[in-house]
Amino acid sequence: MPTDTARITALDTYDVRFPTSRSLDGSDAMNPDPDYSAAYLVLRTDAGDGLEGHGFTFTIGRGNDVQVAAIEALRGHVVGRSVSDLCADPGSLNRDLIGDSQLRWLGPEKGVMHMAIGAVVNAVWDLAAKRAGRPLWRLLAEAEPQWLVSQVDFRYLTDALTPDEALTLLERARDGRAERAGTLLARGYPAYTTSPGWLGYSDEKLTRLAKEALADGFTQIKLKVGADLSDDLRRCRAARAAIGPDVRMAIDANQRWDVADAIAWTNALAEFDPYWIEEPTSPDDILGHAAVRTAVAPVKVATGEHVQNRIVFKQLLQAGAIDVLQLDATRVGGVNENLAILLLAAKFGVPVCPHAGGVGLCELAQHLSMFDFIALSGTTQDRVLEYVDHLHEHFVTPTVVRDGHYRAPTTPGFSAQMHPESIAAYVYPGGTFWSTELEEQS
Amino acid sequence: MPTDTARITALDTYDVRFPTSRSLDGSDAMNPDPDYSAAYLVLRTDAGDGLEGHGFTFTIGRGNDVQVAAIEALRGHVVGRSVSDLCADPGSLNRDLIGDSQLRWLGPEKGVMHMAIGAVVNAVWDLAAKRAGRPLWRLLAEAEPQWLVSQVDFRYLTDALTPDEALTLLERARDGRAERAGTLLARGYPAYTTSPGWLGYSDEKLTRLAKEALADGFTQIKLKVGADLSDDLRRCRAARAAIGPDVRMAIDANQRWDVADAIAWTNALAEFDPYWIEEPTSPDDILGHAAVRTAVAPVKVATGEHVQNRIVFKQLLQAGAIDVLQLDATRVGGVNENLAILLLAAKFGVPVCPHAGGVGLCELAQHLSMFDFIALSGTTQDRVLEYVDHLHEHFVTPTVVRDGHYRAPTTPGFSAQMHPESIAAYVYPGGTFWSTELEEQS
Repeated sequence: MPTDTARITALDTYDVRFPTSRSLDGSDAMNPDPDYSAAYLVLRTDAGDGLEGHGFTFTIGRGNDVQVAAIEALRGHVVGRSVSDLCADPGSLNRDLIGDSQLRWLGPEKGVMHMAIGAVVNAVWDLAAKRAGRPLWRLLAEAEPQWLVSQVDFRYLTDALTPDEALTLLERARDGRAERAGTLLARGYPAYTTSPGWLGYSDEKLTRLAKEALADGFTQIKLKVGADLSDDLRRCRAARAAIGPDVRMAIDANQRWDVADAIAWTNALAEFDPYWIEEPTSPDDILGHAAVRTAVAPVKVATGEHVQNRIVFKQLLQAGAIDVLQLDATRVGGVNENLAILLLAAKFGVPVCPHAGGVGLCELAQHLSMFDFIALSGTTQDRVLEYVDHLHEHFVTPTVVRDGHYRAPTTPGFSAQMHPESIAAYVYPGGTFWSTELEEQS
Repeated sequence: MPTDTARITALDTYDVRFPTSRSLDGSDAMNPDPDYSAAYLVLRTDAGDGLEGHGFTFTIGRGNDVQVAAIEALRGHVVGRSVSDLCADPGSLNRDLIGDSQLRWLGPEKGVMHMAIGAVVNAVWDLAAKRAGRPLWRLLAEAEPQWLVSQVDFRYLTDALTPDEALTLLERARDGRAERAGTLLARGYPAYTTSPGWLGYSDEKLTRLAKEALADGFTQIKLKVGADLSDDLRRCRAARAAIGPDVRMAIDANQRWDVADAIAWTNALAEFDPYWIEEPTSPDDILGHAAVRTAVAPVKVATGEHVQNRIVFKQLLQAGAIDVLQLDATRVGGVNENLAILLLAAKFGVPVCPHAGGVGLCELAQHLSMFDFIALSGTTQDRVLEYVDHLHEHFVTPTVVRDGHYRAPTTPGFSAQMHPESIAAYVYPGGTFWSTELEEQS
């Protein structure tokens, strides 16, 4: 590693909000009117190479300012640090941020403060990948297993996964990495689409979009459920009719139910052969998910987009509570914690199908799934990465999905960077879009 | 209830920080240098009766500004509401705040955003009790069981506790309420003290304070452990020598350990007959606590000060993971969620020994324990409320502990109100104390 004297000189934040509630894009049983937003940050350096680190937390509107405040509370830990040291070992920053005992009180390792840590850590990974001239998935997939293990915080995990076991899992996947990278570059990573199934869409729109999804090469779609059972029966029937018996149809309740309701409602929809029931109840309810899984089999149980950290994922796996693990790129403490979560899933043999959509989650999550395929799980069997066709136009290197597969990004970085014009328009409340809106309202 | 037209006119916030790190008060294995702080708010009205609602979240320094920002994000839900409606049914506000779907994304029901909800809800209870002319414990203890049940959010609880079961628990305790209130007013509520046991104190200070605790009438003390085993062996030996064999000595690891370490370390200290091991591992690790409990019995397992919400407490009880439930007055969504937690504990027959100390936690927690004694559990058997002799002088109605017992407060309200002079001095960074400090540093 070349030593250099470059330092992080600034951590700049932006409260970016898109008015998605107006079209009911993203509507579900718990979130009727989200305004997809990003608490966004840029790390700047004095390296003179023009490279920046971009990162963000995805939120759905109100409170994005609180999330920005939490990111700003971390500034003192980052500004002034050596760029090359940070990029050589993002785990050191991760440990420092999680280890700030005063900030830790605000979690620990959950909610607003933890997502802020994730955003900053992810920005460092973006910068590290850019400096390495590689897309993040490739930087991770080519890394030495021992170094990857050094990037993981094993605290509270060792009853389920030790560093030695993690190393063994990564070493086991060493064979065939180059071949799988070739497969990935040729075919991409399998996706499924949630675009047809938002709760606010009419049956006609649902049917049309489901058929379009098939024509676009997707082999799995997802429907939002949980607000009204008779609506759900009708919508599931329409979707199943549109896609036929062989395409997988997942359903997603977005935490709407208590345990008994989750069991009864899922079983009531079983005639439409749902592949998985997602977020049947509170993301905090490990024992509840285990009870639901037992009672709704063979329908699989999936959760993760709101699971707060590796400790809860550990228990979901220990308790046999999930069939599908849906990590989220901006919910936990960044790439480092997601490495821990991917390793836990590999240890327990549970497929990872990340949550995506929102703002920029597809852009980030693809790197994690592609690394997992090449250098950890070694397979895409029963693995699909969520795809939602929203808001990609705001990113400098948007995801590309063709024939139902994410194309592997080739641009260096974590694909996290928004166009400056998008930020300028949608910064809240002062951006050109919002200031016009707010003026018209008043 | 008299109808009136008074409204909430303001929600004012204050970032109050005390420089406790300078004396190592409050030092433990995870929190070496806390600056005990309060993200504090005042609800003002146009009722003309001079009454305000005060509430706060306890933090330990950095990030208190983020907590204040989260409280401010709730202002729009509160200002303009009818004072009498709010005070007649604080649960309606609790449901609205938890149900704001955009803010919910930032948790859900955990961390900074959830603690902000707790602070605002608690301020409403303070105002409600003042308007009723009663200390909060009495308002709750005299309330109709059906109304108390209406104040609880049972979402995600019904697999463990239904509204009907909650009502039965409260009805069961109806007999003898007046007699227990008399006992409480005469004797107070049993306390234990953590004051001798901070990790930063010398053995001499520990011994002296432990003996003083006995002289002051306490029958249980607590020691911080978990940084260094040989230190812990020496300190536990000194403390046991000071208090003799009959006084209970709890130990507290503040989440320092993984599961295997927790078991080994606790068993290594077993010769000193610790009564409970508190926070042996992550507060998120339900299954881990269950494993520890099995392996360290007859030492009891206690946790709760960092348990994020009722859903995790539910599972700790379902899994048989704890012997002692340590709710915290400002960690969860306020009095309403703590009613749920007290009801869960009563259902499972687990004693509640609240976490206190910090800034103002003793002032708040006493009301919850006193309500529990009079109108729910009906007993103080194996129940003790933590007491730490710090920072009470900043409160208008500070706790009074005599002969090892909290005296029942008689002033109307939730005892949450700080002296205006204390706020003026310790508001950060502009208060008279901090501005002088910061000036001297620069």
